[in-house]
Amino acid sequence: MNEIKEIPTPSAAPPDILRCAYMEIVVSDLAASREFYVDNLGLVVTWESDTEIYLRTFEEFIHHNLVLRVGPEPAVAAFGFRVRSQEDVDKAEAYYQELGCETKRSEEGFVRGIRNAVRVLDPLGFPYEFFYEVDHVERLAWAYERQGAGALVRLDHFNQVFPDVDNGAKYLEALGFKRTEDIVDDDGVTYAAWFCRKHTVHDTALTGGAGPRMHHIAFSTHEKHNILYICDKLGALRKSDMIERGPGRHGVSNAFYLYLRDPDGHRVEIYTQDYYTGDPDNPLVSWDVHDNQRRDFWGHQVVPSWYTDASRVLDLDGHLVPLIEREEPKEMDVTIGADGFSYTRKGDTEKGYKLGGQV
Amino acid sequence: MNEIKEIPTPSAAPPDILRCAYMEIVVSDLAASREFYVDNLGLVVTWESDTEIYLRTFEEFIHHNLVLRVGPEPAVAAFGFRVRSQEDVDKAEAYYQELGCETKRSEEGFVRGIRNAVRVLDPLGFPYEFFYEVDHVERLAWAYERQGAGALVRLDHFNQVFPDVDNGAKYLEALGFKRTEDIVDDDGVTYAAWFCRKHTVHDTALTGGAGPRMHHIAFSTHEKHNILYICDKLGALRKSDMIERGPGRHGVSNAFYLYLRDPDGHRVEIYTQDYYTGDPDNPLVSWDVHDNQRRDFWGHQVVPSWYTDASRVLDLDGHLVPLIEREEPKEMDVTIGADGFSYTRKGDTEKGYKLGGQV
Amino acid sequence: MNEIKEIPTPSAAPPDILRCAYMEIVVSDLAASREFYVDNLGLVVTWESDTEIYLRTFEEFIHHNLVLRVGPEPAVAAFGFRVRSQEDVDKAEAYYQELGCETKRSEEGFVRGIRNAVRVLDPLGFPYEFFYEVDHVERLAWAYERQGAGALVRLDHFNQVFPDVDNGAKYLEALGFKRTEDIVDDDGVTYAAWFCRKHTVHDTALTGGAGPRMHHIAFSTHEKHNILYICDKLGALRKSDMIERGPGRHGVSNAFYLYLRDPDGHRVEIYTQDYYTGDPDNPLVSWDVHDNQRRDFWGHQVVPSWYTDASRVLDLDGHLVPLIEREEPKEMDVTIGADGFSYTRKGDTEKGYKLGGQV
Amino acid sequence: MNEIKEIPTPSAAPPDILRCAYMEIVVSDLAASREFYVDNLGLVVTWESDTEIYLRTFEEFIHHNLVLRVGPEPAVAAFGFRVRSQEDVDKAEAYYQELGCETKRSEEGFVRGIRNAVRVLDPLGFPYEFFYEVDHVERLAWAYERQGAGALVRLDHFNQVFPDVDNGAKYLEALGFKRTEDIVDDDGVTYAAWFCRKHTVHDTALTGGAGPRMHHIAFSTHEKHNILYICDKLGALRKSDMIERGPGRHGVSNAFYLYLRDPDGHRVEIYTQDYYTGDPDNPLVSWDVHDNQRRDFWGHQVVPSWYTDASRVLDLDGHLVPLIEREEPKEMDVTIGADGFSYTRKGDTEKGYKLGGQV
Repeated sequence: MNEIKEIPTPSAAPPDILRCAYMEIVVSDLAASREFYVDNLGLVVTWESDTEIYLRTFEEFIHHNLVLRVGPEPAVAAFGFRVRSQEDVDKAEAYYQELGCETKRSEEGFVRGIRNAVRVLDPLGFPYEFFYEVDHVERLAWAYERQGAGALVRLDHFNQVFPDVDNGAKYLEALGFKRTEDIVDDDGVTYAAWFCRKHTVHDTALTGGAGPRMHHIAFSTHEKHNILYICDKLGALRKSDMIERGPGRHGVSNAFYLYLRDPDGHRVEIYTQDYYTGDPDNPLVSWDVHDNQRRDFWGHQVVPSWYTDASRVLDLDGHLVPLIEREEPKEMDVTIGADGFSYTRKGDTEKGYKLGGQV
Repeated sequence: MNEIKEIPTPSAAPPDILRCAYMEIVVSDLAASREFYVDNLGLVVTWESDTEIYLRTFEEFIHHNLVLRVGPEPAVAAFGFRVRSQEDVDKAEAYYQELGCETKRSEEGFVRGIRNAVRVLDPLGFPYEFFYEVDHVERLAWAYERQGAGALVRLDHFNQVFPDVDNGAKYLEALGFKRTEDIVDDDGVTYAAWFCRKHTVHDTALTGGAGPRMHHIAFSTHEKHNILYICDKLGALRKSDMIERGPGRHGVSNAFYLYLRDPDGHRVEIYTQDYYTGDPDNPLVSWDVHDNQRRDFWGHQVVPSWYTDASRVLDLDGHLVPLIEREEPKEMDVTIGADGFSYTRKGDTEKGYKLGGQV
Repeated sequence: MNEIKEIPTPSAAPPDILRCAYMEIVVSDLAASREFYVDNLGLVVTWESDTEIYLRTFEEFIHHNLVLRVGPEPAVAAFGFRVRSQEDVDKAEAYYQELGCETKRSEEGFVRGIRNAVRVLDPLGFPYEFFYEVDHVERLAWAYERQGAGALVRLDHFNQVFPDVDNGAKYLEALGFKRTEDIVDDDGVTYAAWFCRKHTVHDTALTGGAGPRMHHIAFSTHEKHNILYICDKLGALRKSDMIERGPGRHGVSNAFYLYLRDPDGHRVEIYTQDYYTGDPDNPLVSWDVHDNQRRDFWGHQVVPSWYTDASRVLDLDGHLVPLIEREEPKEMDVTIGADGFSYTRKGDTEKGYKLGGQV
Repeated sequence: MNEIKEIPTPSAAPPDILRCAYMEIVVSDLAASREFYVDNLGLVVTWESDTEIYLRTFEEFIHHNLVLRVGPEPAVAAFGFRVRSQEDVDKAEAYYQELGCETKRSEEGFVRGIRNAVRVLDPLGFPYEFFYEVDHVERLAWAYERQGAGALVRLDHFNQVFPDVDNGAKYLEALGFKRTEDIVDDDGVTYAAWFCRKHTVHDTALTGGAGPRMHHIAFSTHEKHNILYICDKLGALRKSDMIERGPGRHGVSNAFYLYLRDPDGHRVEIYTQDYYTGDPDNPLVSWDVHDNQRRDFWGHQVVPSWYTDASRVLDLDGHLVPLIEREEPKEMDVTIGADGFSYTRKGDTEKGYKLGGQV
């Protein structure tokens, strides 16, 4: 497991994945997590007990988008994808078995509200779940009286940390994901890449680094002011130290963003307004890793913790999947600090009014 | 053509439609239309001549979303849908031929930027085009220096007027569209229905009325304030009489809306923020025609012209397709005025502070 | 009282009025009013009992901006203005005594939180209060965790209905108010006028009509989307029939507006973003009564109830002040319907896409 | 001039200052400055020549809010304040003469559009101008067709750097300014203070540091998204290095902010939504210098250049006024880095997810 092997492409057809649908995360203090996700962020509780909370966004009609489960060590237990039909669950199972991955099938479902699902430990070491059968719940899109100023209306995407982005991308593309954007350099190194199934910029992304780890889960709001309000509310609650990065405008995806850290350090992005990607020939957007506007279109430096920190993931038995280090150059190293460099205008040596080694 | 026949379902597979992609409309004064669509609304000119203007939205990467062609009489020449592959164009041709519809194939394309397309006069009498091959142009999503305060970023949907919504819906559903919302009454009458291919509430809709006619074409903005700005700008230009209805919040679709009328009376909607509909079991939302919040969630009366006016459509030879009257009850009649009624709270007879017969 | 007399200008100096500060209104059902003002609009409760509720906006530091008092008949008991010092309260008392108006002084204050105030029945028949001494309360400007999506942050202005706007304006200007905008016609008739003390377009306005009556009280939000949210929330609560007019953009004041009606029919405006008026030579903006963008910059028709309905006011003994009819032409009559006319472009006879006699 | 003397309070009455009204700055490259202020920020040109550009905001009715004058060295030539009447200009002249300051009177005015003004070199070393007579120009509040997505609608305030904030505050308060907020520590050191005449949080502020220098000039937008757009536009123009700090929410003032640097390094703030301060007993808000939310309510670190950089000011003869160093502790030193500290929650030692020494 400690080195990355070439991943074969199965002969079996991949499942028809609709979208990223939910994440199951392990949290150390359920009350603290509830305060963050329910009281502060306003996610809707579908079901809860002393050990689990099922949460959804306001426009969701399936049972949940996030499961919080109390456990000894913060980690991610599953990245859940919904597929088009129950047959696609079978296809997923066969696909991963052909890949030689461990798979688990559950008629009653691994979590509440979902039945007849399969979980796999994928070739990159991530616990993926594929499901179709799910309880429908009330879509609260019109329930404005319940929606606060920072209402989270959809689950937008996952982001995964993995050492070898090129190899990981090949696997995801074979699985049916379409690459929409990436960050590369002139030497052919890929630092990160974004992949979609639904018609947004991504359902998941690969960020180069020691992995497998979960970089963040992203929820979307309707407008930018909703995201600003979340910052204002955290400030008012004297929790501004949960704001890790942003708000700002991404270069990649063109979306408006904010990164928070939950009480266990799991990273949550709040995200809005990327673009339609549903056509098969949707143009790939490649960004130079030294372009200072790739990660923040306004040229603000990415904080180091955003590059270094991420959540560990669990295998199908609930044990931490071992980490593999990245061998290629790291984005933080090549862009920040004495040894890195970034430009605002390619070829322009003029210095702007920015911090240190950034410009 | 003057009565509606039962529409058979072909044995041939329908084309895999990606999305509504462009509309070709005939305008009587190209300079006046250019002022409206380019100077006032800010659509991007891809190409133009003395007789035609090709326009696109800021996030579009295909050649155009709207073609304005000068002609003797305002009308709609084509509703263009993009399909997944060139094979799907062939499938479309075969599908409509089996339906007994007139079809036309053009290798060089019916309009600039598109090749190898098929046009059909569909069973409802609408000129549909299906295409895959298209010139890519610069996606101006990041070109904020060119985007005004009311930037139109995507083509969102078409809306078609047709007398028999149920019959029309059956045809569209067989073609692969999914019904997302509708307006009905307790007697089983359908007044309007919405249908999607991409993951929004609709790519097209059927509005009950004398048809075939084009009710509107809709472009989307990122945020609601962009739509408010368009009103402010039209006010500043002393063109407020081009604002027909809104801005407001739709009940159906939950989107924020505005209806304008171009210099020929073609109706343009500006639209933002409906919800994800990409799952196959996306719940259908049915609205009671007497629910006063179905068309405007804030309970404002729909102006009569919005119900009565629409643009005529052309057949493949450029002649107006004859109109068929609606035989079922009309939404305007059953909801507005002395003979109609609407409620804010079903069963509640309390009168609110609204105009006349509305509440 | 039933005809309007010439109002003399006192020799005494007028009080230095800071701003409109609070209104006391009589409501018939305190629970229903509480639901509207507290649960729906989110005003902050400073103090309440079974018979009274004291409310304030989020940025206010004085005790209240609105007093709801239960009573047999809906009416307005006081328009409260804050003055610069306690001496200005004395000046106000002397000023109105010289005008021959009934005045009442109260050391303990007419309402909680305010002391040493004077109430007068002014020459137009309105109950005005002037005060300086007031309890300070917490300014909740930074309390974003308490502020909803439609947060009302300030009391902006009052609006009074009075038959003779010119005569009323002379009185207000002598009292130290500055006229910022008005609506007039070519025959010299004034239909409405706006007057400020603080640096906004108005602290109060006179709307021509049978009076004295209270047309509305206006609270402001920070942004336009806050106002849109209030509509969305009322829609979600199935209370859209409380929305009387708007949202829209005013011509007069350039502000974004919404008019609601409370459970007793008292009109409440939600208002945002007019302009700075603090310079003594601030230019007066005069609008032609036939300019269809004067009341709504987007050219939407004003609903008749907005012109006809208003709240009665009480004298210092709690009795309704008798009404005087307007003798000059009425704005509704000259602008709407068969006998009225409005234009979008002066001198232009082209018809736009608007309702009936409006354009 | 190189040490700060006690500033006496004149016996003469101070002028009645209305508001900060305009700044005159010297720029090294007029074309580059025009590109920044006109093309990028969209300020309205009232008048221009090869050596000067007069600019105003969209809601302004006086001749200008900013004068750019080409010169050998970037600096500030005047902080212009409008007073209530021409008599107040005389009062200003007498007031500063009694203070022993150099004064200059000009009937024709120091700049275009303004007549009969006085300039003084005030006791802190700043060139202040007081004027009343000014040309009125068109107020473009309603000219939405000219207003871009980032429209600057008002001049909001100045910010001045001066070593001894307490001494400077005493002078400004005697001149009639009201202190609205400040940043202090438990030892009685004042790091910065804010002062108003109009009804906003400030017309000017004193920031502790080597001075006299100009820290920034601030223009306001209507909404927060207008400010975000300015960032997006600068990003699109590949000028993101002109963004020095923000956007963010201030603790002090509660406003939403962005700091830019013009081509000469003059700092420009874009600002929106502080609160009403017009009452004489408006509560002072004091912030602890160690409170990490005082400068950015979301807890983001202030970039060092924001503390260290500022523009030099000119005396009445056009020579640079010599600098005096600050002797008291500096805000940057006590809050950032190894020797400084900041807290999110007073007394709480828990570490959040922030950079280095900040939390």
